[in-house]
Amino acid sequence: MTAIRLGMVGGGNDAFIGGVHRIAARLDGRFQLVAGALSSTPAKSQASGAALGLDADRIYDDFKTMAIREARLKNGIEAVAIVTPNHMHFAAAREFLKRGIHVICDKPLTATMAEARKMAKAVAECDALFILTHNYTGYPLIRQAREMIARGDLGKLRVVQVEYAQDWLTQASDAKQAAWRTDPARSGIGGATGDIGTHAFNLTSFVTGLVVDKLSADLDAFVGGRQLDDNAHVMLRFAGGAKGMLWCSQVAPGNENGLALRVYGEKGGLEWRQENPNQLWYTPFGAPKQLLTRGGAGTTSDAARVTRIPPGHPEGYLEGFATIYNEAAEAIIATKNDTPIDPQVQFPGLSDGMAGMQFVAACVKSSKCDGAWVRLAT
Amino acid sequence: MTAIRLGMVGGGNDAFIGGVHRIAARLDGRFQLVAGALSSTPAKSQASGAALGLDADRIYDDFKTMAIREARLKNGIEAVAIVTPNHMHFAAAREFLKRGIHVICDKPLTATMAEARKMAKAVAECDALFILTHNYTGYPLIRQAREMIARGDLGKLRVVQVEYAQDWLTQASDAKQAAWRTDPARSGIGGATGDIGTHAFNLTSFVTGLVVDKLSADLDAFVGGRQLDDNAHVMLRFAGGAKGMLWCSQVAPGNENGLALRVYGEKGGLEWRQENPNQLWYTPFGAPKQLLTRGGAGTTSDAARVTRIPPGHPEGYLEGFATIYNEAAEAIIATKNDTPIDPQVQFPGLSDGMAGMQFVAACVKSSKCDGAWVRLAT
Amino acid sequence: MTAIRLGMVGGGNDAFIGGVHRIAARLDGRFQLVAGALSSTPAKSQASGAALGLDADRIYDDFKTMAIREARLKNGIEAVAIVTPNHMHFAAAREFLKRGIHVICDKPLTATMAEARKMAKAVAECDALFILTHNYTGYPLIRQAREMIARGDLGKLRVVQVEYAQDWLTQASDAKQAAWRTDPARSGIGGATGDIGTHAFNLTSFVTGLVVDKLSADLDAFVGGRQLDDNAHVMLRFAGGAKGMLWCSQVAPGNENGLALRVYGEKGGLEWRQENPNQLWYTPFGAPKQLLTRGGAGTTSDAARVTRIPPGHPEGYLEGFATIYNEAAEAIIATKNDTPIDPQVQFPGLSDGMAGMQFVAACVKSSKCDGAWVRLAT
Amino acid sequence: MTAIRLGMVGGGNDAFIGGVHRIAARLDGRFQLVAGALSSTPAKSQASGAALGLDADRIYDDFKTMAIREARLKNGIEAVAIVTPNHMHFAAAREFLKRGIHVICDKPLTATMAEARKMAKAVAECDALFILTHNYTGYPLIRQAREMIARGDLGKLRVVQVEYAQDWLTQASDAKQAAWRTDPARSGIGGATGDIGTHAFNLTSFVTGLVVDKLSADLDAFVGGRQLDDNAHVMLRFAGGAKGMLWCSQVAPGNENGLALRVYGEKGGLEWRQENPNQLWYTPFGAPKQLLTRGGAGTTSDAARVTRIPPGHPEGYLEGFATIYNEAAEAIIATKNDTPIDPQVQFPGLSDGMAGMQFVAACVKSSKCDGAWVRLAT
Repeated sequence: MTAIRLGMVGGGNDAFIGGVHRIAARLDGRFQLVAGALSSTPAKSQASGAALGLDADRIYDDFKTMAIREARLKNGIEAVAIVTPNHMHFAAAREFLKRGIHVICDKPLTATMAEARKMAKAVAECDALFILTHNYTGYPLIRQAREMIARGDLGKLRVVQVEYAQDWLTQASDAKQAAWRTDPARSGIGGATGDIGTHAFNLTSFVTGLVVDKLSADLDAFVGGRQLDDNAHVMLRFAGGAKGMLWCSQVAPGNENGLALRVYGEKGGLEWRQENPNQLWYTPFGAPKQLLTRGGAGTTSDAARVTRIPPGHPEGYLEGFATIYNEAAEAIIATKNDTPIDPQVQFPGLSDGMAGMQFVAACVKSSKCDGAWVRLAT
Repeated sequence: MTAIRLGMVGGGNDAFIGGVHRIAARLDGRFQLVAGALSSTPAKSQASGAALGLDADRIYDDFKTMAIREARLKNGIEAVAIVTPNHMHFAAAREFLKRGIHVICDKPLTATMAEARKMAKAVAECDALFILTHNYTGYPLIRQAREMIARGDLGKLRVVQVEYAQDWLTQASDAKQAAWRTDPARSGIGGATGDIGTHAFNLTSFVTGLVVDKLSADLDAFVGGRQLDDNAHVMLRFAGGAKGMLWCSQVAPGNENGLALRVYGEKGGLEWRQENPNQLWYTPFGAPKQLLTRGGAGTTSDAARVTRIPPGHPEGYLEGFATIYNEAAEAIIATKNDTPIDPQVQFPGLSDGMAGMQFVAACVKSSKCDGAWVRLAT
Repeated sequence: MTAIRLGMVGGGNDAFIGGVHRIAARLDGRFQLVAGALSSTPAKSQASGAALGLDADRIYDDFKTMAIREARLKNGIEAVAIVTPNHMHFAAAREFLKRGIHVICDKPLTATMAEARKMAKAVAECDALFILTHNYTGYPLIRQAREMIARGDLGKLRVVQVEYAQDWLTQASDAKQAAWRTDPARSGIGGATGDIGTHAFNLTSFVTGLVVDKLSADLDAFVGGRQLDDNAHVMLRFAGGAKGMLWCSQVAPGNENGLALRVYGEKGGLEWRQENPNQLWYTPFGAPKQLLTRGGAGTTSDAARVTRIPPGHPEGYLEGFATIYNEAAEAIIATKNDTPIDPQVQFPGLSDGMAGMQFVAACVKSSKCDGAWVRLAT
Repeated sequence: MTAIRLGMVGGGNDAFIGGVHRIAARLDGRFQLVAGALSSTPAKSQASGAALGLDADRIYDDFKTMAIREARLKNGIEAVAIVTPNHMHFAAAREFLKRGIHVICDKPLTATMAEARKMAKAVAECDALFILTHNYTGYPLIRQAREMIARGDLGKLRVVQVEYAQDWLTQASDAKQAAWRTDPARSGIGGATGDIGTHAFNLTSFVTGLVVDKLSADLDAFVGGRQLDDNAHVMLRFAGGAKGMLWCSQVAPGNENGLALRVYGEKGGLEWRQENPNQLWYTPFGAPKQLLTRGGAGTTSDAARVTRIPPGHPEGYLEGFATIYNEAAEAIIATKNDTPIDPQVQFPGLSDGMAGMQFVAACVKSSKCDGAWVRLAT
């Protein structure tokens, strides 16, 4: 087992998500970070790279230089993690994709729909893989929920309730994390919708297999002077007749990362909360509610495949994130070996990213049109 | 302390809510049931009355006879509980109101808006009190939430999430309770919206003091052949700029009486669930989340006033329901004594009933117009 | 249905438990309070009786006068509730028992073992019933747990963990409720052990059917100057080989009425907490954990018999307490009619009271002997 | 930052805890596994080492050969993780310690007290560090609880309730994990007491700072033919007057890794459960209960130091375990640099291991003497 050589764009010293990606890449030993353009400020990139123990000649001042040189090195990077603010995703990804370097990109896909379309084109024209880190799809019980629904445990689906509530933007903030996320130039047209609504939307699709046909949205920016939405109420109509509600908010005091998904069908219901991801509630209609645990009785094959330790010892966010990296590793190795990817391997990719962009665009459009139903492009 | 003489219309042997009203009336010893027209089937009314130990000459075959005779008796009933299906509320209430007998009526107000308007007229033209049993307003911690919001603990309100989910109509049912609730002739135009959505709507108003300006609704009847909605998704816009979502469903397996209210403002958040009504979560923004308990540290005056036992011993649904009867008793006695009603006394009345009817009508109208925003009459 | 005529000894205006007994007696309409000696201070008894609406000639200055006169009245009381501090239970009960008036007595049985033995003699020599209000046995899911264990759902029992934790005596207190409970002259030799330990002990016996053979105890009075235990650690050995731990405390900040019972056998486990008594966790070994709800799927016959309302609307402490009164009513009526008592009727009685006294005595003895194992008399 | 070179003894392909150690060592990038004697069966050691990507010449057939050679290598291992069954801990540790290689050893310390004393001697006579992986001390909120108690938030402590309940040994089992843990030859004299009781005991000491003076224990082996305890009830007396109860069980259906600690003092209480380690309940006496979250409001310095990601995204078991490795890394680097170890660095060591051995010995001795109080050696 040789670790896959990984580079990173963004993720300098004081970034949050870069550190998460590094732990995720390392946790199962499938990747080794060997190069980086860790900041758009060269001095900061150098300092960050040194702190991470990168060889000096593989710390780059900018991602383009890095892409060019690494592509030429004998043992250059095989994959790159892009963990910049949204508006730089495309420009960075393009440089690596076109050189055959696999891209693991943070979500949402891009800041603008125009960039998203270019990203789609870039992905279509290259041989490299594109993985989007909708990390919540890595939780074992999310895999289990998906599998249970797919095999019919809930019967035909009727209702989905999904929400992602936070409180950290309840007041105006100048913190780095807040600054770019509330800035249209760096985040795009979606605020809460783009940052966390896309996660809720993606999780819904991943678990239920349902496709949103139309949505009606009511967006607000409750904090004075804020340019992007910090609260969104969305009604969903799925193809096939199921209905849903999606709420995302960054101004709900008492909520840290309150991502919760509830799905109801003709035969039963499932309920899951991210803050305690090792539990999944399952109610077969007419029978007692069951508390399924990660790795416990009733564990499905897809869940067992991505679980590391026995039940009762919690696996958390980093493990879920690491599973996305593991899946990427599986796909990268299969690609390298020119073998088919195991069908149990699951990772979000370009189409999920496009769907997320369309979700945000539809929310903004609907809200501007007083909540008119907007059809999602398919 | 002499108990108030109470009559009952509806609530025969196999009814559910009649028994609840009787326990609620009795629990604090403020009422004594002395007369009844307990069923529209005379023989059943007689049998039910006998089983309840009513004097034979105060068991009536119909409510009109009862109203006429009781009004003439020296010790006739002072108040009547109306616990029939919705479509009989008005006809029964009118007979008692016009004879000065106070009416305690189950919700929703009536089956149709036309009846509701007549009810409003009947109430306006009489001297009797009209109490509508939106019983959840009787829970001590609901009183506390209301008081905390009114005194500004949450600051200006921004977002309300309210839901009432059940699962008992997941499949088609011929049970008595299901039959009339899914029959437009007896229930009116609202299914889940009328039966439980009105509770969620009323609770929102009661706790937050906010007034819904407009709503957008998407209603479904998921069970084949069902004539009334069994699931409703509603977006709310309150006067003053706050926003909300309301979900009510009777087809969500795993939910028994999942009434939950969450309110978020500029300074904090409150979260409450009916199934464990002795707990209230309060988060002052930036400080740890607090678990307030009924009667525990931080209890407010309005909550203490309606609590019977110290914290840690749960009070439940019947106690909350009994509080509405207690409040009715307070108002009835004040009326009898021609003294002002203590301002802490709180009970839902005609205006709450009218608001509930308008809520249902607006939901149905909006849903028929593809979710167009419908303004609630004021 | 005619209500049973009830008297009360103790329970004057500022008493806690007297009010609870009155609500419990009234809740299901089986009893009517018609007489009382509500305080050992005559003026207070008069004032309290008047406030409760008792006829003036049935408010007594002392319980003996009340017993003598009520026994002679044509419609004198049929039963009496004794809700005084522990040291008066026996003297009061004796007067009523010997006149054939049924006694419903608060727990623990008496203050001293000597009184307990006299109580046993008094009960044995009379025809009246003796009901001890170990009220937690009235919760529907406690009935269900008992039934599940009796029918073998857990297999042979191995381990019982029971606890009752409070915090209200964390500091020295002069409040009335605290004063007599920490006074050996009025409470007896047990502090927390007598007041709440007996509840935990009784609940264990009721649910499991196991009999404690021996116990080893370590008692403390952590608050300076306190004469009775406020914290007790007890190890239990049951006849047949099962083992248990019992913890009771009144100095555990953050606990209100934290009564919790967990039972484990060869085939499964059950877990229940009083503060949310409408839920019961059941784990069949090797299968997912189930959340059983009062009245929900899987409800047993014994539980259904004492449940009033459908699942999802909580029944609380007062309802559970009222069930003891209902059971008393069933037994009283059967006695009156000279018919057998329905075997499903369950209420704690003298033997439970004696067992509780022995439990306290054994705890105190063991603790004085440095935790030596003390056999409980049988 | 150069990773510390790590070897491993035990932890071959089908071992559970070896994999955990490897992830923990890797998670924060402070260690690199470079050598191993992964099984006492040479072929299995080779296969396991190859699967882990170790260089062939650093996969050893036995730990002694490994210790000798690695000590001589220029870039030999600096530390070794010992993850064998208990009875091999000492023999392996000795070889590395005496050669100045730091030892990170799984718990309990050894299988026998005689070995434990030899281990103590070996540690005392060498310059290497000895770290014992009582991993639960790595959870951020456990650090916070320790700090809150140390600074007096609870006042003088009175009562500790600690438990560790599992169910996986409810029935007889031949699985590898079960086999050695129930075999005195490989585990020592403690079953549940040694395997999980030592964790509960260690956590109590770590968090409270209290020292157990004496204990009284009642041990059982409920499963037929089992030689070691599978359930233990223990009463604790701490120096200074506080009291405690400790329950550990492997036969409690419905419990996965139910490690829970509750501490009560004169001024407040703390409650924590391992299965949701990102929450800590804190009740200042007389004020509402607070739900403290990892990284949320009220986070202390010691907790913040070992937290990786913001609140609301759970950190789990592997992160807590990795923190022990991080602390080891801090200490190893300080030792290498001959600088003092930062006083915030906390890791369990020899004295914790000795205390755990004494705990097990005292439990077994007390239980054999019918629960007599046994003083722990100090």
